[in-house]
Amino acid sequence: MDSNSIDHASRLHRLQTLLPENKIDFLLVTHLPNVRYLTGFTGSAAALLIAGDSATLFTDGRYKTQARQEVRDARIVIASKPPQAAAAEWLGARRRQGTSSLGVEGESLSAGARARLAASLRGKFRLRLAPPLVERARMVKDRIELERIRHAVLLGASLFRIAREKIRPGVREVEVAAAMEYEARCQGAEGMSFPTILASGPRSAIVHGRASVACVPRRGFVVCDFGVILAGYCSDRTRTVHVGRASPEAREFYGAVLEAQLAAIAAVRPGMTAAEVDGAARSVLRKSKLAQWFTHSTGHGLGLEVHEAPRLAAGQTQKLDPGMVITIEPGAYVAGKWGVRIEDVVVVTASGCEVLTPADKDLIVI
Amino acid sequence: MDSNSIDHASRLHRLQTLLPENKIDFLLVTHLPNVRYLTGFTGSAAALLIAGDSATLFTDGRYKTQARQEVRDARIVIASKPPQAAAAEWLGARRRQGTSSLGVEGESLSAGARARLAASLRGKFRLRLAPPLVERARMVKDRIELERIRHAVLLGASLFRIAREKIRPGVREVEVAAAMEYEARCQGAEGMSFPTILASGPRSAIVHGRASVACVPRRGFVVCDFGVILAGYCSDRTRTVHVGRASPEAREFYGAVLEAQLAAIAAVRPGMTAAEVDGAARSVLRKSKLAQWFTHSTGHGLGLEVHEAPRLAAGQTQKLDPGMVITIEPGAYVAGKWGVRIEDVVVVTASGCEVLTPADKDLIVI
Repeated sequence: MDSNSIDHASRLHRLQTLLPENKIDFLLVTHLPNVRYLTGFTGSAAALLIAGDSATLFTDGRYKTQARQEVRDARIVIASKPPQAAAAEWLGARRRQGTSSLGVEGESLSAGARARLAASLRGKFRLRLAPPLVERARMVKDRIELERIRHAVLLGASLFRIAREKIRPGVREVEVAAAMEYEARCQGAEGMSFPTILASGPRSAIVHGRASVACVPRRGFVVCDFGVILAGYCSDRTRTVHVGRASPEAREFYGAVLEAQLAAIAAVRPGMTAAEVDGAARSVLRKSKLAQWFTHSTGHGLGLEVHEAPRLAAGQTQKLDPGMVITIEPGAYVAGKWGVRIEDVVVVTASGCEVLTPADKDLIVI
Repeated sequence: MDSNSIDHASRLHRLQTLLPENKIDFLLVTHLPNVRYLTGFTGSAAALLIAGDSATLFTDGRYKTQARQEVRDARIVIASKPPQAAAAEWLGARRRQGTSSLGVEGESLSAGARARLAASLRGKFRLRLAPPLVERARMVKDRIELERIRHAVLLGASLFRIAREKIRPGVREVEVAAAMEYEARCQGAEGMSFPTILASGPRSAIVHGRASVACVPRRGFVVCDFGVILAGYCSDRTRTVHVGRASPEAREFYGAVLEAQLAAIAAVRPGMTAAEVDGAARSVLRKSKLAQWFTHSTGHGLGLEVHEAPRLAAGQTQKLDPGMVITIEPGAYVAGKWGVRIEDVVVVTASGCEVLTPADKDLIVI
């Protein structure tokens, strides 16, 4: 997986063609995953200034070597001030006739940074909150991205084998997580895509129950939600197992969540909205009288970030297109008692979707 | 380490007393480490609205159980919309005479969120970028925080033993990192405080050279920069070792960085500015003709975040006070050749500082 094989020049070019119709002369890209998407730069301090015919990456001295290794299609400026300030200074020094419009990324640029930017460019530039142009472009993955996501998802999925081996009554949740994370690293993962969730017994009702020093009880559900970052791309997978004999009620609860998950997967195809897929999961849980315990959205886009557009939730009118990669992860949680979540990654195809995560989803009793 | 032993009520109260002098009627705290500092809440979605006599935490359904377990001293509102929007709606519904001022945290609130907030509160509230009140409060650590940082630093430091065992010519950098991270988890760390840096051979010149699949060469420096999160608090430590025989030039290079690091530590005492400590390290490297290769700041505050105030860099006028916890980490990097960084965590005392990191800093040759 050679990072040079990604065609950053085309990505930049496509974005540049969108600027005039959005009435933007310059776009200041400050969301780091967007910077990476457009240039390949992976450092933690960067601002990318895009005009109709140029792209300039601002970073600091720590990243001098790295920027030159990673970035081919943008000019590189190593600055002694923060990247956004350096970009503003660079812009301010450009003489142009009249006032230009500078689009900024409203969700990543802080209100403070926006105020400083406006002050330093006063009169020369009109600041505008740009639409999420790069996020929109990132929704549909290209061939190389799909390949990387497949690799990440397969590596991530393989960690569940470790979880199955390690989860036993009395073991601390963190020990299970540690073993999974060790395996991920040894297999080349850059890291986990989020803090590993390993929530056992009544903790399984905590939706984001990070692995704790709590011990797995003799009986109950264990929610395992985990992902890796491999070659920049994230995986995300949840499986819920049961330790000790599962009561009929527990089996029924698990079965309802699984049915909801399968219904949502069946609903994924081009032209469906994100809200419709969410609704498919929710209506199954409504029939099972569990909808009140399904307290989060059905899923989210996945790529350079573990949570990216689109969001699969009520009211989301975004239509699905081939090449979008999303998670499908309904759950149900009864505080103090138990919780179940089942999650796969799917890619939207021409006629439906392909589940990338290996599909072993019957209830596993340990 | 019982989270209940932290006195959040006093922290909130101290902050509330600062509002009038800053001409703020309501403060919307959106930086999650600040929310945690003030309430104990550790979820990933939250906004905390503080008035002179009240504190209200907004989060979503995923965190219902967790919020009730963690938060004692603020009202909890579980909202079906994003926390900031929920806070705005709650504020809008409060009838008050005249216009109130709403302080926002300019570095964490996004420009987009600020615009939405302003639109939904139009006429009723004057939005102001508040000074970094919580960040300032967080600079000086209390007894319980110092205890937690000590534990985190000791656990973090113990991982270097693993690095020394694992670093050998031919081993992949990620394998060393994986072994360190596994040990951290088994010892109860919630995770690493940043992606582990393990940069060997010419990669040691990459300041933020995350552990890669590159193999440790037969000869050269290996920079190991790593930290853990334990009970919410971060550690941060860098050691540089040499694989194979170290040339006199390598030893001299290492010695100069070490001398700079010791000079900076010697400069730490109450009343010194952050810039003066930075200058102490820089002037040693200037004498050794290495200043041009020292491309980052000398250090930073450490606590709930791995990088927090103060920043030890040129121009930083912040004075050091007893109880501040900072890193001291000068380095020098020659692109394509090699790099060295040495980093300890110190706490400012009444008369100087105490180095919390065990102080084995002679060059280790493996």
